[in-house]
Amino acid sequence: MDTSAAPTPSPYREGLPPQPPGPPEGEQHFTASETIRDLVIGMADGLTVPFALAAGLSGAVAANPLIVTAGLAEISAGCVAMGLGGYLAARTDAQHYVAERAREDQETQDYPDREKWEVSAILHRYGLRGETLSRATEAIAADRRRWVDFMMRFELELTEPAPDRAAKSAATIGGAYAVGGMIPLTPYILMAETGPALVVSATLTGLALFGFGWLKARATGLPALRGAGQTLAIGGLAAAVAYVVAKLVGG
Amino acid sequence: MDTSAAPTPSPYREGLPPQPPGPPEGEQHFTASETIRDLVIGMADGLTVPFALAAGLSGAVAANPLIVTAGLAEISAGCVAMGLGGYLAARTDAQHYVAERAREDQETQDYPDREKWEVSAILHRYGLRGETLSRATEAIAADRRRWVDFMMRFELELTEPAPDRAAKSAATIGGAYAVGGMIPLTPYILMAETGPALVVSATLTGLALFGFGWLKARATGLPALRGAGQTLAIGGLAAAVAYVVAKLVGG
Repeated sequence: MDTSAAPTPSPYREGLPPQPPGPPEGEQHFTASETIRDLVIGMADGLTVPFALAAGLSGAVAANPLIVTAGLAEISAGCVAMGLGGYLAARTDAQHYVAERAREDQETQDYPDREKWEVSAILHRYGLRGETLSRATEAIAADRRRWVDFMMRFELELTEPAPDRAAKSAATIGGAYAVGGMIPLTPYILMAETGPALVVSATLTGLALFGFGWLKARATGLPALRGAGQTLAIGGLAAAVAYVVAKLVGG
Repeated sequence: MDTSAAPTPSPYREGLPPQPPGPPEGEQHFTASETIRDLVIGMADGLTVPFALAAGLSGAVAANPLIVTAGLAEISAGCVAMGLGGYLAARTDAQHYVAERAREDQETQDYPDREKWEVSAILHRYGLRGETLSRATEAIAADRRRWVDFMMRFELELTEPAPDRAAKSAATIGGAYAVGGMIPLTPYILMAETGPALVVSATLTGLALFGFGWLKARATGLPALRGAGQTLAIGGLAAAVAYVVAKLVGG
């Protein structure tokens, strides 16, 4: 849509100008990767629920083999359910993206004026007006792939999922749940009496929750000590509730 | 940056033109709301893990009161852990948004040229060139709030979370987990023998998983029967694994 054929001194003429200098250490933004998110999901529940279940049963049932059986059954169930759940969720996201993209593509063919208007409406919100708005809209709509790209990201707020995301997500969540769950359960496997096993389990799990909360807070750029305290508090509260419930029902 | 003072016939001159007609039934896009996502997270795990735990213990321990104690302890632990986990995740998202926004705002003050270049780089990717690119960039950077808005959404891909999101998320996930968990456990509470309770529990949970998977698929616009089958398969597989593990360890 640039109608003037005269040369222009603007560095924007053909493409991007060279990048101006930014902050000396680069831009420091914390956007947790999807793998870290998956690790957090699996590990947080894996540490908390099996610990709380074992602690709850310690109050009601004074037999370690039974607690170990229940704990291992819970860890396997949680590992499979959360891992496959993560797999399906990622697969669903991918299918959803493909379906919505096809729909959006069709709309740019059937209702091009409406879809151009929608591009304009988004750019208008960010301050584009008059000729700049119409030229920017036409530039985006000049290439159908870019046009649909724009609508997917800025109207529907959908980003294309990575192709191997589903399998990686399943393995990360399921693996983190199993590893997290074995920490509170190991004392019950190795020790004969329930009382001491509960004490060791609580200590190990408390340390693990604290350290895990610390790392999680660091990864998202938030205060580390507070993050550690909050993660520890959730685990403790879940265990306390499970303990009281098991004591009331079975004790 | 519109330098020409002459009137222009473009309808984009002052603002948006009227909206052109679109598809007769409106645009049909399926973007699951955050509440539906929370319901799915809580309900899927709530139905699967307590069912699998109870089924697993049915293979190893022939006493319903014990299965009920373990099941209720698991449901309370899972409900608290997932509910509070959801609360903290939503709170962390909100704090993360505020922190990143402050950082981005500071950068537009300290390194305006670099941040303008970043706006250009994003628009360039969608086909804006030459004068249109420089004008659009200046229009966005003319208002700091819009400029930072643009960088938050299109560079960092962060959207501002709703203010009451954390509490709602906690209640939805925790509540869905508790409701989901009581479905497989109720037969063990009401019936005396483990074998028949397992059969009723499996039937009820199977129906619930199938119906829940169906609704979930409908909400995301995917094939409903396939969604129902997949959800059912995850629950069945998790229970089978838990059953085998409990049988091997405790049977």
